[in-house]
Amino acid sequence: MSAALGARLRANGDEVVEVREPGGTSLGEQIRELLLDSDHMDPWAEALLFAAQRAQLVRDVVAPALERGAWVISDRTYYSSIAYQGKARGLGVDLVRQINEAALGGVEPGRVLVIEVDPGTALARQGRPDRIGSESVEFQEAVRAGYRDLADAEPDRVTLLDGAESVDELVEQVIRVIEDD
Amino acid sequence: MSAALGARLRANGDEVVEVREPGGTSLGEQIRELLLDSDHMDPWAEALLFAAQRAQLVRDVVAPALERGAWVISDRTYYSSIAYQGKARGLGVDLVRQINEAALGGVEPGRVLVIEVDPGTALARQGRPDRIGSESVEFQEAVRAGYRDLADAEPDRVTLLDGAESVDELVEQVIRVIEDD
Repeated sequence: MSAALGARLRANGDEVVEVREPGGTSLGEQIRELLLDSDHMDPWAEALLFAAQRAQLVRDVVAPALERGAWVISDRTYYSSIAYQGKARGLGVDLVRQINEAALGGVEPGRVLVIEVDPGTALARQGRPDRIGSESVEFQEAVRAGYRDLADAEPDRVTLLDGAESVDELVEQVIRVIEDD
Repeated sequence: MSAALGARLRANGDEVVEVREPGGTSLGEQIRELLLDSDHMDPWAEALLFAAQRAQLVRDVVAPALERGAWVISDRTYYSSIAYQGKARGLGVDLVRQINEAALGGVEPGRVLVIEVDPGTALARQGRPDRIGSESVEFQEAVRAGYRDLADAEPDRVTLLDGAESVDELVEQVIRVIEDD
C-alpha cells in the first residue's frame, strides 16, 4: 500500500520519501531487532523503545524531507503506539501520546491512514508473526478499538480505510482525502 | 564504591543485590551498547533508551529483590536521567521525571547518593571516555547543577557526598545516613 501510494504521488512529479517503523536509521534498525525478537519485554520498555527509534527517524529523515517539501509516507507512526501500547497494553493513551509528542518536537503526521482488515486476513498476510503480531485476538481487538477511538476523536486527521478493497481503490480513496486537505 | 558499600552491608548478614545502569538484563545490556557507542544520537532517543532499559531492569531484578527484603545498590538511577537528559540536555526535568516514574510503576530509590568529584579527577578515573563522558566541561557542569537542584529540592532522598574522601570514609557516611532512614 505504501509503495502503491508512493508511485501514485511520484507520477505527479512530487518527491516521496517512504520510511518504516520501527527502523529507518542505523539506531532504529538495531532497536527494531530488539523490539521484534526479545522475549519477556516489559510493556514500558517496549513503548519507550518505539518512541526512541521514532525520535531518531524523525530527526534524521522525516523532518528534513518535510522541510524540502517532500511527501513522507511512514509505515506506522506514533498513533500506532497510542493504540498498541497506550490502549491495548493499558499504559494510558494520554501519557503515550505526550511522550511521543515531546520526543518528536512538533513534527506531526498530516494524515493517519488506518487500514482495517479482519484478524484472519491480517494473520494470513503477515506470514510468520513477530512478537507483537503473535498477541491474542483480544489484544488485536483492543488495538482496533484504540484506532477507532482515535478516528472518532480526530476525524480530520485519522481516516479508517476498508482493507477488503483493492490496493488501487484504496490509493484513490487516499488521494481524494489528501486533495481535500 | 558500590562494591565496598555492598560488602559492608553483607557483613551485617543482609542480602545485597548490585546492579548497574544502563544494563543488568539481556535487553538492557544491548541497549547499553547502543547508548555508549552510537554517534549522532537524538537527545530524546537517548533519554527514552535509558528509561527503557531501566523499566526492564526494575521489573526483572530490582522489584523482586526489594520484595524479598534485599538491599539494592544501583550504580545510577533515574535521577541521573533527570540531571543528564532533563537538565543538561534541556529536555525538561519534570517531563523526564514523569516518564521514568510512569515506566517504573512506583519502584523508587529510598536514597540517592551523589558523589561529587572535580572534572579532572572524574576524567582520570574514567579511562577512555564513552560518548556521554566525552561531553564538554559546560555539559558536565550542567549535570552537576542538575544533581544539586535535586539535592536542594529533596534533601531527605538525595545526599551529596564529597568524592575527595576515601571510599572507607564514604561508606561510613552512607551507613550513618541509611541508619537514620
